[in-house]
Amino acid sequence: MVQLRKVIHGKLDPSDRSDLVGRLLDLFLITLIAINVAAVILETVESIETRYHTVFWVIEIISVAVFTLEYAARVWTSPENPEFQNSKNPRLAYITSPLALIDLVAILPFYLGFIVDMDLRFLRVLRLLRILKLTRYSSAMSMLLDVFREEANAFFAGFFILIVLLVIAASGAYLVEHEVQPGKFGSIPAAMWWAMATLTTVGYGDVTPITPAGKIFGSLVGVVGIGIAALPAGILASGMADLLRRRRAELIKELRIALEDGVIDPAEERELEEIRRHLGLSKRIAEEIRDDVQRSHSGGLTGQCPHCGRNLG
Amino acid sequence: MVQLRKVIHGKLDPSDRSDLVGRLLDLFLITLIAINVAAVILETVESIETRYHTVFWVIEIISVAVFTLEYAARVWTSPENPEFQNSKNPRLAYITSPLALIDLVAILPFYLGFIVDMDLRFLRVLRLLRILKLTRYSSAMSMLLDVFREEANAFFAGFFILIVLLVIAASGAYLVEHEVQPGKFGSIPAAMWWAMATLTTVGYGDVTPITPAGKIFGSLVGVVGIGIAALPAGILASGMADLLRRRRAELIKELRIALEDGVIDPAEERELEEIRRHLGLSKRIAEEIRDDVQRSHSGGLTGQCPHCGRNLG
Amino acid sequence: MVQLRKVIHGKLDPSDRSDLVGRLLDLFLITLIAINVAAVILETVESIETRYHTVFWVIEIISVAVFTLEYAARVWTSPENPEFQNSKNPRLAYITSPLALIDLVAILPFYLGFIVDMDLRFLRVLRLLRILKLTRYSSAMSMLLDVFREEANAFFAGFFILIVLLVIAASGAYLVEHEVQPGKFGSIPAAMWWAMATLTTVGYGDVTPITPAGKIFGSLVGVVGIGIAALPAGILASGMADLLRRRRAELIKELRIALEDGVIDPAEERELEEIRRHLGLSKRIAEEIRDDVQRSHSGGLTGQCPHCGRNLG
Amino acid sequence: MVQLRKVIHGKLDPSDRSDLVGRLLDLFLITLIAINVAAVILETVESIETRYHTVFWVIEIISVAVFTLEYAARVWTSPENPEFQNSKNPRLAYITSPLALIDLVAILPFYLGFIVDMDLRFLRVLRLLRILKLTRYSSAMSMLLDVFREEANAFFAGFFILIVLLVIAASGAYLVEHEVQPGKFGSIPAAMWWAMATLTTVGYGDVTPITPAGKIFGSLVGVVGIGIAALPAGILASGMADLLRRRRAELIKELRIALEDGVIDPAEERELEEIRRHLGLSKRIAEEIRDDVQRSHSGGLTGQCPHCGRNLG
Repeated sequence: MVQLRKVIHGKLDPSDRSDLVGRLLDLFLITLIAINVAAVILETVESIETRYHTVFWVIEIISVAVFTLEYAARVWTSPENPEFQNSKNPRLAYITSPLALIDLVAILPFYLGFIVDMDLRFLRVLRLLRILKLTRYSSAMSMLLDVFREEANAFFAGFFILIVLLVIAASGAYLVEHEVQPGKFGSIPAAMWWAMATLTTVGYGDVTPITPAGKIFGSLVGVVGIGIAALPAGILASGMADLLRRRRAELIKELRIALEDGVIDPAEERELEEIRRHLGLSKRIAEEIRDDVQRSHSGGLTGQCPHCGRNLG
Repeated sequence: MVQLRKVIHGKLDPSDRSDLVGRLLDLFLITLIAINVAAVILETVESIETRYHTVFWVIEIISVAVFTLEYAARVWTSPENPEFQNSKNPRLAYITSPLALIDLVAILPFYLGFIVDMDLRFLRVLRLLRILKLTRYSSAMSMLLDVFREEANAFFAGFFILIVLLVIAASGAYLVEHEVQPGKFGSIPAAMWWAMATLTTVGYGDVTPITPAGKIFGSLVGVVGIGIAALPAGILASGMADLLRRRRAELIKELRIALEDGVIDPAEERELEEIRRHLGLSKRIAEEIRDDVQRSHSGGLTGQCPHCGRNLG
Repeated sequence: MVQLRKVIHGKLDPSDRSDLVGRLLDLFLITLIAINVAAVILETVESIETRYHTVFWVIEIISVAVFTLEYAARVWTSPENPEFQNSKNPRLAYITSPLALIDLVAILPFYLGFIVDMDLRFLRVLRLLRILKLTRYSSAMSMLLDVFREEANAFFAGFFILIVLLVIAASGAYLVEHEVQPGKFGSIPAAMWWAMATLTTVGYGDVTPITPAGKIFGSLVGVVGIGIAALPAGILASGMADLLRRRRAELIKELRIALEDGVIDPAEERELEEIRRHLGLSKRIAEEIRDDVQRSHSGGLTGQCPHCGRNLG
Repeated sequence: MVQLRKVIHGKLDPSDRSDLVGRLLDLFLITLIAINVAAVILETVESIETRYHTVFWVIEIISVAVFTLEYAARVWTSPENPEFQNSKNPRLAYITSPLALIDLVAILPFYLGFIVDMDLRFLRVLRLLRILKLTRYSSAMSMLLDVFREEANAFFAGFFILIVLLVIAASGAYLVEHEVQPGKFGSIPAAMWWAMATLTTVGYGDVTPITPAGKIFGSLVGVVGIGIAALPAGILASGMADLLRRRRAELIKELRIALEDGVIDPAEERELEEIRRHLGLSKRIAEEIRDDVQRSHSGGLTGQCPHCGRNLG
């Protein structure tokens, strides 16, 4: 039983890419998710919905069946997952992990539709959250999610600043424009719609200041808006540059350890390749790092002591 | 008296987070500020204002009472604050500090309403500045404010460039479009509204060039607008990356000093944790830095000792 | 024959800039491409097309003749190109390279017009792809293309996130607004037009939410839109900073090797200049790097030699 | 005469800030320029122009007199300027420098108005270029201009990419929409107005695709537009981070040289302060760098060789 569990886990876990069956399974699941999402989107177009009603029903039945089976299989094999083996209750740890929760939310709407009598349209749209199941299959996603997690504090501070500016911008526009445009700027909540559109530089144009003072104030809000738009960019850019630097340092560490005996055998090669892929560094960058490490290992510092002539390395 | 002052200061200062009473006080104040801001915003909606007039009045009385008490307490206990103990007159130094000025501005409108006969609506909106009292409670804010302070010169240069481009863009559009659209481009100040909307890429669309020459010039202004939008992003990004690098270096310095005796005792642990939180580095990054420093301290350097020739690691 | 081939290759390859004939040829080709692109664009304006019909026809005949000759010459001399000499079949490797494919696509529409009976307007626009032939002549393009290639994974992850957010944003707006605005938000595909305009912060304004809930949701989508706009900026910025750092390291490596014998002779100078230009580093930066390397090589290190104790500088 | 020339140059050159007369002169010139720019802008408002016609005329006469005198003085004292002393003809080198050309363009329109019979309105707006005279007085501007100069190649490549995308986007929209919206998408030049507004994410909304295919294509153009907007941000950010790094390195170099004798005397202090201001580094960052250099100078590498116990430094 445990053996069977090990095997199935190997097929389900997308990080081991050498297995053909596993890769085919990944491809099948990705395609099914994509079909699902497309189906939910097209279902909302009335003309299409009335014509292909049965097709959509069949797709839904099959999808829920497959996803339920997949969920059950993942929960059952979760003790084989190295990420959860350290927990006291691996299965519980897995069930509460983000990816597992997404899988659960993906199949709930179908079952909920039987238990609770909810707005069918709302349940239908909830099925769209299945698109988040695709996060499991993208290795570069983990890097972006890491950056978000690392810089969460800065992001919250940025969001707080945005709220403060929204309130100040809406209030200023309200004070200046509410007499001239009582419909659009008649209250601070009303003015917030304009403030939001301007701070985010979306600028729909359905609401704009008319008075000269309003236009001057509106221009200022627009300028501040560019700055606000810059915040997440700056946070992301510095966070990503930092993450990249730390990943290089990790690869260099590993390369140094592997080079200690002076040579890198095939087993170490595979391991380094695995680390490279896990860190998300391109082969090109990995090559450069490797050259550097190998050169500095076989020679140390470059240059010579100008006094005694011996090499510093 | 001094003992009481010390105790109250401990409760007021949000940086010491181990105290439960202090944390409850923070939570209470934050909630009150949020309620206040929401109240001012909702008051501007006429339907709500007429219905809940009394509720808003009660909220205002309570809030001003609490905030006045808070302000008095902070001023009284300010000599206990390490930031101001070095000044000749700690209380004066505190009263003129940004946070204290925000607290004062928060309660002034209420008292001003009795003294001066001002536009009630304007005073009411002034109360919104209480939202800035929340800056005290966000630790990540200090990093962003630091970046702004550091790069203030670059920001001013960017703002100056924006003014120059605004003038040039508005003038060009005025020259080209003033005959065809005398209302919207009839003078340079008028054309400035379009120029601002385009340079900030907000692009309302209420004013656009009609002539072919105007459209070509307008496109150029749009392209320059993207570049302008890039300025604050570039300044922020490089400023933040730089700040992060310097904070790491500080933590590494502290870790090295703490490791000099070879071990980190609990007192040093708490100190390092405090520094980590003060610097705004995540636990994860702090762990990585610590591993690196410990390895290089215990001899995990790579290369060879120039004295005895053996590997350093 | 091989000698003639070598000579012609020297003229065609734009990287060798000392040859006057080669540079004149480059200039001629660039001008012809630009004239071509301008011609195709102006041909679509009916008034211009009817007046200058013959001129456009002549331009097209000449251009196709020249480009066909150029393509034939490049294919014939491709074995002289160092980039392809390592392949088993250099000509095939060249023909399948991006620049060669662009050259082929540039002349195909003309010939296709005779073979296949296609929409003339579509074929005409296809000729615009000749503008991509200009990529060959810009040395700074290679750096940007390198960054795109390096960070391709991160870009795909960003694109995936955009799709997910598009689906979620459109669905939310659909749920909230479809009853009030059945034309604009009547189905998820319909709502996607608004979602796209808002997430990209383009914000046309032809479709906007009307309900209060719709406006609140729309504001959230706008805020997320700024974040999304930040993604490519962050990826590009960190990728470019990283690329620049690695290019410096390469130049430093080359300078060190050249300095090993203590002096840089004219042959090495030309080589270093070639490397500098190939790496895309400005002369100013190259000077600074050179000073640093020369100083550290001649003993300008700081600190003390661990052997004899004297200052290294 | 030469002595007088030296003295006047000292007053004119804004980099020597210890001179009160020089600083007053700067302030006077800055104010005059600002008044000038404001006057030209307000002159275009007909109501204001008719009322204050004489005031504007007086301002213009005074300004041209002062600026002409300033220009003559700067040209005469240019040999004293260290920047131009190396040239064969210092005065000619100065006259052709950017700042001098701006000063010339600032006074030309007035004189041109007598010589040539040009459109008065155009000449009037040309006077606005006086705003560029303010570039001389901003020290942080030099850093941004440096970044632009350094990364000029990358910016041009970005501009070229923008042109290519503009052509492709306009052509695609033309092909898809020209039958449905012959006025707005009737030719590629016409479609370029929409393409520009979308690629720059300005998104006026006066022209938008109507067909489903057009909306899908339009969405793609919007997505690419965000990427394009990211280009200058990425270039600027990495260029600025790089510039900052190189400036630190320069300051560290200077500090090391000054510390060689173990102490920094007042003369060296003033020099380092000058360098700090010239490089545009904040006092705070300079302090940190100084601490680091001083510590590493007095101790070298940290850590001990694990084998023979001696300090590596």
